[in-house]
Amino acid sequence: MGIVVSLDGEHKKPSLDALTAIVEDDLAAVNRVILRKMDSPVALIPQLAGHIIAAGGKRLRPMLTLAAARMCGYTEGQRHIALATCVEFIHTATLLHDDVVDESDLRRGQESANAIFGNKASVLVGDFLFSRSFELMVEDGSLDVLAILSHASAVIAEGEVLQLITTNDTETGETAYLDVIKGKTAQLFAAACRVGAVVAGRPKVEEEALESYGMNLGIVFQLIDDVLDYSAEQAKLGKTVGDDFREGKITLPVILAFRRGDDEERAFWRRTLEDLEQTDTDLERAIELMTRHQALDDTIERARHYGAIARDSLGIFKDDPIKQAFHDLIDFCIERAH
Amino acid sequence: MGIVVSLDGEHKKPSLDALTAIVEDDLAAVNRVILRKMDSPVALIPQLAGHIIAAGGKRLRPMLTLAAARMCGYTEGQRHIALATCVEFIHTATLLHDDVVDESDLRRGQESANAIFGNKASVLVGDFLFSRSFELMVEDGSLDVLAILSHASAVIAEGEVLQLITTNDTETGETAYLDVIKGKTAQLFAAACRVGAVVAGRPKVEEEALESYGMNLGIVFQLIDDVLDYSAEQAKLGKTVGDDFREGKITLPVILAFRRGDDEERAFWRRTLEDLEQTDTDLERAIELMTRHQALDDTIERARHYGAIARDSLGIFKDDPIKQAFHDLIDFCIERAH
Repeated sequence: MGIVVSLDGEHKKPSLDALTAIVEDDLAAVNRVILRKMDSPVALIPQLAGHIIAAGGKRLRPMLTLAAARMCGYTEGQRHIALATCVEFIHTATLLHDDVVDESDLRRGQESANAIFGNKASVLVGDFLFSRSFELMVEDGSLDVLAILSHASAVIAEGEVLQLITTNDTETGETAYLDVIKGKTAQLFAAACRVGAVVAGRPKVEEEALESYGMNLGIVFQLIDDVLDYSAEQAKLGKTVGDDFREGKITLPVILAFRRGDDEERAFWRRTLEDLEQTDTDLERAIELMTRHQALDDTIERARHYGAIARDSLGIFKDDPIKQAFHDLIDFCIERAH
Repeated sequence: MGIVVSLDGEHKKPSLDALTAIVEDDLAAVNRVILRKMDSPVALIPQLAGHIIAAGGKRLRPMLTLAAARMCGYTEGQRHIALATCVEFIHTATLLHDDVVDESDLRRGQESANAIFGNKASVLVGDFLFSRSFELMVEDGSLDVLAILSHASAVIAEGEVLQLITTNDTETGETAYLDVIKGKTAQLFAAACRVGAVVAGRPKVEEEALESYGMNLGIVFQLIDDVLDYSAEQAKLGKTVGDDFREGKITLPVILAFRRGDDEERAFWRRTLEDLEQTDTDLERAIELMTRHQALDDTIERARHYGAIARDSLGIFKDDPIKQAFHDLIDFCIERAH
């Protein structure tokens, strides 16, 4: 584990390096557009948006748009820059809205924008970025792009509401869980990829291939994210684990451990995740149960399945370094779990 | 007071009746589209959205779109129905997001969607309606409409953030206050009206006339709303007053009373609105101070000023019953204060 066999037979640790190199200049341009377009005479807006965008890390979603446009042969224009910005703004808006807490919620370990600026400011600045994203799309002028991203936004909201309903419900099954992550995470990955094909003016079949790649990659990404939240390795590296556990989120590792467990174990999951009655040693116990039932390993196995679909989605594109970078990205997402 | 002299010299109480009659059938169609388009396989979404849309009352904003389209001679198509729905969805989304509270907030008197369903559900269902609104606009296919409503949405968010900053700040001046209400309220009135002209394919000058009407009507509407929150008459009628006061919102009646008051009075405003230290008799005292300084009457006077601008904005349209209904609407909004 932790090692992938690459196509040329060598062993190497998958990385984002190839993808990063391909989109490096474009991404720098996106970062400039982000800064310019999040500006407002109302100073709190760039201040708060800047806080979360600076912390936002990898810019994975806009990178997908940029790389997809390149793979589809888009080399002349700058539309992919503006539209990658739209994708990042929508992502940032959902992060801000995801930070909103109810009084009953447990506080998360890390400092969210919300903890600093308050619920209401997070909501409104999210709304601003969301609206600004649509303004940018209108400037771009493609109704196809507008259709893709407005639809994605509606599906994301549906996915988030579904997650809200399944939270604290240990009866949630794997299918419902998959609906949640398709909505809240994978839909934007899919849209980000598809938009790249649209700006390049490629046939529908390529749009759909890239959308399928993005959808399945998004599922991989979220499954592995859910594994990492229970990873003893991550904890050793000093990273926060147990956020999902503390919030009572029902993710696939929980679903598998719950279904494979005995009555006493199910009582444990109900107490900790439904009633949110947790003691200091409960997270450790949760990880122990997951390990006993191979819930984490099997979640990674499920991720590999979607990774394989993502890989095959790109079969219609010619083999070249960009396609290879898209393949590496799948491996990279999966290998995060090791 | 309480009586307007109408154009034909008769005294009559202004009403919404003429406007309601003109858009009645269209509005029924809008209500059907609202129900259809707020549906989702995630049952909580129509449930929560229905709660606020049912309570939403007058449907003033979609009525503006419908009536504006009619005044511009749009009689053949159904585009105004879908777009009026978009306007109402954006309004509903902002209401839901406005319901979001911070832990420090005082609870409002009435049952908000948020109090029943929680902050997070309100935010996410708001996001859904907002996204759905853009999906509907994309179906309609007009980039002009998309530009108007995406821009309006960004300005609304800016206005709401500005309001957040000015809340509890008694130093807020009349200009800053006007910026707040132009953003949070008037911009959507303006956009709602303008969209009516756009679907009718009218020249820019008519679009702008209707936009100006809507902007100024929106200012009237909000100013009077702010007066009503301190109205002893409203309290007698059993309506809730004092919401703004309890939240420490700085509205024009406060700004005028604060600026016209002496040091002792300003200390009162600071204690109650900045520090939110309020006793049972403070609201009464606030109304007393406003009355002493004519702050409520003069806010109504300011509203009349914007009402006059709204009226003149429509000068380029021929005199007919729809234009008369638009005029009546201004009077109706102002007379709510009596």
